This record gives sequence, C-alpha cells and structure tokens, in this order.
Amino acid sequence: MKHRIITISREFGSGGRTIGKKVAEALGISCYDNELIQKIAAESGFDENYILDTGEDAPGGFLASAFSHRASGPNNADYLWRVQFKVITDLAEKESCVIVGRCADYILRGKADLLRVFIHADFDVRAKRIVTVYGERGESPEQRLRDKDKWRAAYHRFYTNMKWGYAQNYDLTLNSGTLGIDRCAEIIQSLY
Amino acid sequence: MKHRIITISREFGSGGRTIGKKVAEALGISCYDNELIQKIAAESGFDENYILDTGEDAPGGFLASAFSHRASGPNNADYLWRVQFKVITDLAEKESCVIVGRCADYILRGKADLLRVFIHADFDVRAKRIVTVYGERGESPEQRLRDKDKWRAAYHRFYTNMKWGYAQNYDLTLNSGTLGIDRCAEIIQSLY
Repeated sequence: MKHRIITISREFGSGGRTIGKKVAEALGISCYDNELIQKIAAESGFDENYILDTGEDAPGGFLASAFSHRASGPNNADYLWRVQFKVITDLAEKESCVIVGRCADYILRGKADLLRVFIHADFDVRAKRIVTVYGERGESPEQRLRDKDKWRAAYHRFYTNMKWGYAQNYDLTLNSGTLGIDRCAEIIQSLY
Repeated sequence: MKHRIITISREFGSGGRTIGKKVAEALGISCYDNELIQKIAAESGFDENYILDTGEDAPGGFLASAFSHRASGPNNADYLWRVQFKVITDLAEKESCVIVGRCADYILRGKADLLRVFIHADFDVRAKRIVTVYGERGESPEQRLRDKDKWRAAYHRFYTNMKWGYAQNYDLTLNSGTLGIDRCAEIIQSLY
C-alpha cells in the first residue's frame, strides 16, 4: 500500500517549514526537515554541515560542482543526491509523513500517494521574515534571498529538470504572505 | 471601498470556468466570463467573434498582430486591450465578483481586494476533458491544447510581462485534475 506523503517545496523565508510542522502536528504524522539531513549524514558518513553546504541551499558548493567536469565520475554532490534519493524513498515506504524540501516531490513521483505543495511569498514579506526568524547577517536580507532563490532554482533544475515555482509541478501552490501561514496549513490539512 | 474580486486564470481544458461559476453561485456573486466579451463588444463596436479571435485564445489573430510593426500606431488588438482594461476596471468599481480570464489579475492589481487564482491540470486530463466538454474538432485534442496554451502564454506575456503559470503571480494555484473541480471550488470559497 502506498503511504500518503505531503511534500512541501518552499521559497526561502516563506514559512514553508513552519507550515509543514503545523500540518504534521494537526494530522498526527511526522514532519521531516532537518531530520532528513541527519539521516543523510548517518547514511553517507558526511558531516551535517557539509551536507547543508552541498545541497539545495548551498552557498556555492552545489553550483561550483554542478558545472564542473565529471570526467572522473560523479562528485560529492552527485553522491549526496543518491543518498538523499535513497533516504527519502525509504521514508516513503515506511510511513505517511510531511517532507519539507530536498526535491521529495520529484524523488517520490509514482512511488507514493503525493500531495505536492509549493509555498511562496512576495520578496518584501520574505525579506522581513528572515530577519525575524533567523536574525541579521553580514549580508542584507535582500541579498540573502536572491542568493538562496538562485541556488534552490539551480539545484532543482539540475537534478530534476523541473522549473522551480511553476504551478504545473504541484497540486497546489500557496502565497503565505497574502493568505497567512495558519490558513495555508489549514488548506493543506483539509486536502489530506 | 474596494470590492473583493476573485480572478481565475486557467489553462484551457482545466475547468477554470466551471470552477468560477460554482464559486460565484455559492457566494451569491456574479461570474464574468463570456459576459466580458459582450461588454467589450458593446463598448468597442466590434463583433463578439472578432473579439474572441483577437484575444487570449486567438487562433493567430493576436500572435500575428503582436509581432507586427506598430509604426502607424496601435492595432486592433491593442485597442481591444484598452477596452478590456476599461471594462474590467469599471466592473471592479461596481461590485464584488468572479472574473475568469482576460488578465483581470494584472488589470486590477492595486485597484481591488483580489484573490488571484490559477487553475491547471495535466495535459492528458485536459485533452480528455475538452473532447467531453467541447466535442471533437478537425484537429486532435492534443494539438488544440498545445495551440491554446501557446496563445494564452504569449498574450499574457505581451500585455502583462508576467510569466504564465508561475506560482508567484497568484495567491493560490490548484491542479483541478488531482484535486477535483468541486474541491477546488470549495477551497476558493473558503478563502473569500
């Protein structure tokens, strides 16, 4: 029997992770977000920080490797993609759950009963939110958003060939800025 | 006071029009779809069929004019865009309603309390649906879909500079094929 999995792709700062946690809590199922990184670390032997630096939010790590020659075979990013693929596939075979990020929608297509969600919000809303949630950094919130948006889009395009943010890739997409985070969570729950 | 307007952009064959009618009926407000064409005809003096042939579903009409020289000033498509702009703006000043298609989301930005919806469905689902709803034509349903998709995307890009189908342009986007037409209508109603 196929498990029911809610996959949440999200723009940085849109509250996708918070929405995922709320949905999972309301439905009494697990939400995998940072827990995925821990599983990938355990499976691969790589450090959690290295995995974060090589994944969809990579500050240069993924992009640098993405366009490098692969004449000598797959690089670490490719290896981690395969581990990520296995960890997420195993998870879907084991239980119904919410999975945030990490291309789970692509990895699980055809393998689970999916509800594929994309959460986004306007640039200004997200810029304000990341300062509230993650605090100030050396770079401006606008620059941090532009970088993260670019990395996530490139990562998804490279490994899934899907256009990031295109409605056609999802069952529903929600603007958390105009609809509100709680309302987004309620809509997703109601569809489960 | 700003009226509350639900704008429904939709892929051809996705049931966006049906969803708009259902939502409007449930909320006790009007749904403007073909009625818009009648209003544009009354305002412009052009025949309804000519308007259909020059608009977002134009079988060549819009595309032919879009890339033509405008050395001698705006062409008929541009004139009809202006009339459409006026008709939709007037409507939003008069009443809360549902408006299907015709770039109403773009035309009314900042002018009304908008809920911007995009309805889509997988190609196969739509190909099947257009035969059921509109019957057989000389061209295959697949070719009809490809043509309509292309025209709508080009029309929207030309007049609004928005990328057709991008989640970021909307408050929510719904896959009517996987969620079902009734469920889509219920979600939109619940957000009004």
